[in-house]
Amino acid sequence: MKKIVIVGSGTIAAATARLIAKKCSEYFQCSIIARNSVTARLICDDVLRDYNTVMAWHECNALDRENLARILRWSEAELVINLATPDTHLEVMGACLDSNCHYLDTALFEAESDFNVSPPWYQPEKQLKSSFSEAGLTALLSIGFDPGIVNCFCAKAQKDDFDEILEIDLLCANNGTHGHFFATNFNPSVNLKELCEETSYREAGLWHTAPAFSRSRRYCMPGVGEHLMYSVGHEEVHSLAEKFPSATIEFWMRIGDQFRQTLQTLERIGLVSREKIMVRDVQVAPIDVLAALMPEPSSLATTYRGQVCVAVVIKGRKQNVTSSMIYYSVCSHEACFEDIGAHVTAYTTAVPAVAAAQMILEGHWNAKTLVHPEELEPDLFLERISELGMSWKASLLPTTISSNGEIINVDVETEFAQTFA
Amino acid sequence: MKKIVIVGSGTIAAATARLIAKKCSEYFQCSIIARNSVTARLICDDVLRDYNTVMAWHECNALDRENLARILRWSEAELVINLATPDTHLEVMGACLDSNCHYLDTALFEAESDFNVSPPWYQPEKQLKSSFSEAGLTALLSIGFDPGIVNCFCAKAQKDDFDEILEIDLLCANNGTHGHFFATNFNPSVNLKELCEETSYREAGLWHTAPAFSRSRRYCMPGVGEHLMYSVGHEEVHSLAEKFPSATIEFWMRIGDQFRQTLQTLERIGLVSREKIMVRDVQVAPIDVLAALMPEPSSLATTYRGQVCVAVVIKGRKQNVTSSMIYYSVCSHEACFEDIGAHVTAYTTAVPAVAAAQMILEGHWNAKTLVHPEELEPDLFLERISELGMSWKASLLPTTISSNGEIINVDVETEFAQTFA
Repeated sequence: MKKIVIVGSGTIAAATARLIAKKCSEYFQCSIIARNSVTARLICDDVLRDYNTVMAWHECNALDRENLARILRWSEAELVINLATPDTHLEVMGACLDSNCHYLDTALFEAESDFNVSPPWYQPEKQLKSSFSEAGLTALLSIGFDPGIVNCFCAKAQKDDFDEILEIDLLCANNGTHGHFFATNFNPSVNLKELCEETSYREAGLWHTAPAFSRSRRYCMPGVGEHLMYSVGHEEVHSLAEKFPSATIEFWMRIGDQFRQTLQTLERIGLVSREKIMVRDVQVAPIDVLAALMPEPSSLATTYRGQVCVAVVIKGRKQNVTSSMIYYSVCSHEACFEDIGAHVTAYTTAVPAVAAAQMILEGHWNAKTLVHPEELEPDLFLERISELGMSWKASLLPTTISSNGEIINVDVETEFAQTFA
Repeated sequence: MKKIVIVGSGTIAAATARLIAKKCSEYFQCSIIARNSVTARLICDDVLRDYNTVMAWHECNALDRENLARILRWSEAELVINLATPDTHLEVMGACLDSNCHYLDTALFEAESDFNVSPPWYQPEKQLKSSFSEAGLTALLSIGFDPGIVNCFCAKAQKDDFDEILEIDLLCANNGTHGHFFATNFNPSVNLKELCEETSYREAGLWHTAPAFSRSRRYCMPGVGEHLMYSVGHEEVHSLAEKFPSATIEFWMRIGDQFRQTLQTLERIGLVSREKIMVRDVQVAPIDVLAALMPEPSSLATTYRGQVCVAVVIKGRKQNVTSSMIYYSVCSHEACFEDIGAHVTAYTTAVPAVAAAQMILEGHWNAKTLVHPEELEPDLFLERISELGMSWKASLLPTTISSNGEIINVDVETEFAQTFA
């Protein structure tokens, strides 16, 4: 039994705990450390009731490095899965160094006040690389679905398919419906900020930025159909740019019209702002008020219907032949809920986080320094996520993928069936 | 010099103080009583600087009847113009009774929690009618533009034009632009609630209600052109229904598409709610957060361009002939700003409030009981508002006013010029 700790008690933390309880309870002895002991305790109650698995919980603000390190030492934790808010990452990494503990998270560190951070991102985390190297500890950054698995897809394409990678388009399309007027799949404060920020992308070895919603493409993707996708600033573009410095790299996300219009309305009024304002006699940040009015993200799972496709379309060269590959995974909200009571976003973050924890503790991914997923050997990890419930596929794309007018058709399951037959 | 007190220090209070300072400083000695001494003091500073008029200010929560009465007695006030939030009306009326003081306001009493109050309105105020009668004091309710002047238009039409009034359509269209994405002309909390409530209207002697934005008409009006107007629950419908119990009565307001869509989005998310919610560690009402983010209503005046038309279209019978009249006033934001630094909404509430205060103190309107404007003799009052800056007109309408397909054309200044020539 490996002792690990989940920091956080939100939507993703709950799904991760449930996944461990259902599928790896022989392997992990898991505790939960969270600022909010009510939600932490609820998770422990749930996994005991549903999977007969015991987990312990501790109350601790993840920003309190000293106290957190004390609890980690007391827990004899070998690894921390940090699923608390993104502003906690540096302190939790510090606590791991203090308590001789491996670390992984599933997204970028972001200070509360960060907005439109200039590329490349991950600079604050990098400051800690030498400390992890010296301590011989692994810190694996952003190992969710996207970022995370998609980075590993790129590593695999480089290893198996291409001598040189020229273009990487990261795609994320959720065609699900949950019946709520306005909701996010994870922490609204983090999610809405991401969508309001300018996008950053790589072209010809240079960074470019553009206003939110100013760059869009229409894609047809496996399992989800045709969608208008917007360029959004996303973690993996920034770490992949380091591994593939001359490649064109951009992240595209499906954002529905109603959601986008609502978000833009809220933003214009100032309701997405994190800056506290005076309201009668109290100080409050508008985004926190908005978040408090929105559905709790994990609650969406019960009514969610539909599928999510996350894909990487990679154009590269091998022996002077240029071609394009798609690596992708399609997950259904219903199937994820059926499996562990979570929606796709939570499920597909929990699976790679748990697989990565195993990989590190088994030594396969024990890098003994701070790394991004694309720096590690992808094959065994990609097997593991399949075993844990996330199947994925890779496929060669037709030479011209922009076949249908303005729609970029990468739906290898439907549209090209004959071509591939 | 008549000693009067303005209660409140918002947009309308500021305009009223400035109007008095500019045009009636020989007649009124005015003080301001407000919960917020900062804004009250600002008004006093402004009128001293701009019009060389001295006003005093006192800090007092208008809901504190006892303290308010004490200040009114100390001020030797003969009349209170209550321009504080609508939840204060009953307490301020009580303080007037306690201090032997006449009372007027410009809108309905509304408790904070009131929403979709069943018709007819004004029931809480009516409870105080006998007290005002016994004290020989006048309480004049809702003497703004609409409600207020429009009620007097109806009284005048009954006196001069018709034996019997059959239909009253109250119209309010603002074609102004102020350059803000989302703003209200007065207290956002009060204004937005009004627009989210169901509408109530009279038909064939009965009350009817319908969801917000569910009833609309397209009108072409003097000075502002053609607009889609929505049926909105409004004060004057409720008091006029008592005077004209068998008439059809409805209030129609122009609400622009962008404003309506934004409001409906905010409402669906819960941001128009007055119910306090827990946000992190504080309690706050979403509507107050929204209001805090919106432009301060009086600040719109500086950039406002365009006109407002408020009209009453009255169909009636005289000696067995049925005809329709329009009584209306068109005001421009620029002219109001030029005159006293206020936009039309503030200006056209201040003018009738000040004229009514004069009428009461001079004895013309000293009803010595609680009354609505339509119960009083309208002619001198309508002269006075003209003198104070609000010109108005009355005109016979063509027999069929619905001349242009679905558009109800009541623009007697443009469209019917030939007919009337």
